[in-house]
Amino acid sequence: MTNLYGGIEAGGTKFVCAVGTGPDDMRDEIRFATTKPEETIPKAIVFFRAQEKKHGKLTAVGIASFGPVDPHPTSPKFGYITTTPKPGWANTDLAGAMQKALDVPVGFDTDVNGAALGEWRWGAAQGLDTFIYLTIGTGVGGGAMVNGKLLHGLVHPEMGHVKLPHDWEKDPYKGRCPYHGDCLEGMAAGPAIGERWGKPAYELPPDHPAWDLEAHYLAVALQAFVCTLSPQRIIMGGGVMEQPQLFPLLRQKVQEYLNGYVQHPTILEEMDSYIVPPGLGNQAGVLGAIALGETAVSSPQMIAQT
Amino acid sequence: MTNLYGGIEAGGTKFVCAVGTGPDDMRDEIRFATTKPEETIPKAIVFFRAQEKKHGKLTAVGIASFGPVDPHPTSPKFGYITTTPKPGWANTDLAGAMQKALDVPVGFDTDVNGAALGEWRWGAAQGLDTFIYLTIGTGVGGGAMVNGKLLHGLVHPEMGHVKLPHDWEKDPYKGRCPYHGDCLEGMAAGPAIGERWGKPAYELPPDHPAWDLEAHYLAVALQAFVCTLSPQRIIMGGGVMEQPQLFPLLRQKVQEYLNGYVQHPTILEEMDSYIVPPGLGNQAGVLGAIALGETAVSSPQMIAQT
Repeated sequence: MTNLYGGIEAGGTKFVCAVGTGPDDMRDEIRFATTKPEETIPKAIVFFRAQEKKHGKLTAVGIASFGPVDPHPTSPKFGYITTTPKPGWANTDLAGAMQKALDVPVGFDTDVNGAALGEWRWGAAQGLDTFIYLTIGTGVGGGAMVNGKLLHGLVHPEMGHVKLPHDWEKDPYKGRCPYHGDCLEGMAAGPAIGERWGKPAYELPPDHPAWDLEAHYLAVALQAFVCTLSPQRIIMGGGVMEQPQLFPLLRQKVQEYLNGYVQHPTILEEMDSYIVPPGLGNQAGVLGAIALGETAVSSPQMIAQT
Repeated sequence: MTNLYGGIEAGGTKFVCAVGTGPDDMRDEIRFATTKPEETIPKAIVFFRAQEKKHGKLTAVGIASFGPVDPHPTSPKFGYITTTPKPGWANTDLAGAMQKALDVPVGFDTDVNGAALGEWRWGAAQGLDTFIYLTIGTGVGGGAMVNGKLLHGLVHPEMGHVKLPHDWEKDPYKGRCPYHGDCLEGMAAGPAIGERWGKPAYELPPDHPAWDLEAHYLAVALQAFVCTLSPQRIIMGGGVMEQPQLFPLLRQKVQEYLNGYVQHPTILEEMDSYIVPPGLGNQAGVLGAIALGETAVSSPQMIAQT
């Protein structure tokens, strides 16, 4: 019997559910809006039940979820979305609901840790043991693998909320994070770009000064992440990073802000392979969920050997 | 036969060498200035040889070293001090020299990772798997354990060099890091305090505004570390942290800057046990070296069970 996994990329805006075993074997996929838990969760269950009729019993389901979440397998609230401001979703036992309805093991983590795991399994982080996956879109989030395991720590990283140097004369925009104002997410997420320049980010031409400023804030944050976590690579996904002009600007500024202090050839000479887009493109999220499904039944180390 | 370990806290200013098995069994210790490698390393060797005559063969030696270093056991330069600006010490095979002279296994890591390991073994991080050890002294450095292993990644963390928000009107001091100017080390290490206020940090009274500003910069950096690594605890050592008024200021500001975003009781309610001084006091460094000696012959997980 071959294994078959269900994956849920549970975003604050939409759910993406899929069934498969990896990028070359995705059997089916469905997308629907994230409304209320009592509407959204049953839709996922109905999808997976229909899939099981077609393809047979699922081995496990993986969930890569918006948060904050409880990703600690030994915690009583493991698999919960915990304190999210999204109406109706605080204290929701998302993993438990799937486990009960489908009677399968469930792997569960943050959306960005899921994407990190997917990139490690099939994408731009294969063979690494310590790296960061960042998404720059409606919000800013970061996941990480360290020493071959996804990083949780006390809760899980919240890389979008680091405080940044802010030159108010050069950029009088005050930021829009309800908690921190001008933190990374407050200054550099898609809606911040739109609000600062008065039109949606995707309407700004590639030579607009918005992109140099965006690269500046991202590079300052990356400089801090490099100093703190010493990642072997940084993968940058999300809608904002689909602007291809950002990558060269970002690489140049990260080098500039590190200023030769971290004397490693990867940073001094190979920046093009150090800061990269996701190898799985916009499938990083849902494939990450599939990979989390795998971890529900075997360890990443075992998976790496398959 | 019981095990016996040698430890070297190899600092840029002085070497501390000791022999023992832990905080309750330190047999002997010697301190001498860090001059040139060809003077300093033989002094350590002479000390350990004399100790072996008294106490018998050492099981292993651990070295917690100033850096940058190469802490990757599989690297050809493992155990080297690599690109340090300290005259004469760049590209020095410190671990190899000890291994050859004493014919023992050698554990090797950064000074701050060593101190982190010592705190995990016998001090303020017992039972944790993800935490940070910071030292604020002549310089600023940070080590970390993540998922039960010391963090290296691409090289090793350089937490002293994160860029900080800098309000030039409130604090016109330009910082003194030769690489980054006003990074954390440039603004908050002991010499920066001294230069900013015109007298040595230890001469400033506890109610001097220097300490509130110092706590501010440290708290901004800690906010970033919490968002990036999600540590279960942060241990703050080094000469500057011997100012007891800093801890309450720092705890209050970290809470203020996180502003309730990380909703975990440890951060919301138990800040006094979240940001703490080293449990091993100023012995954290040399005991960390002893603990690194242990890891040369058994894994931390095995040590934890002894």
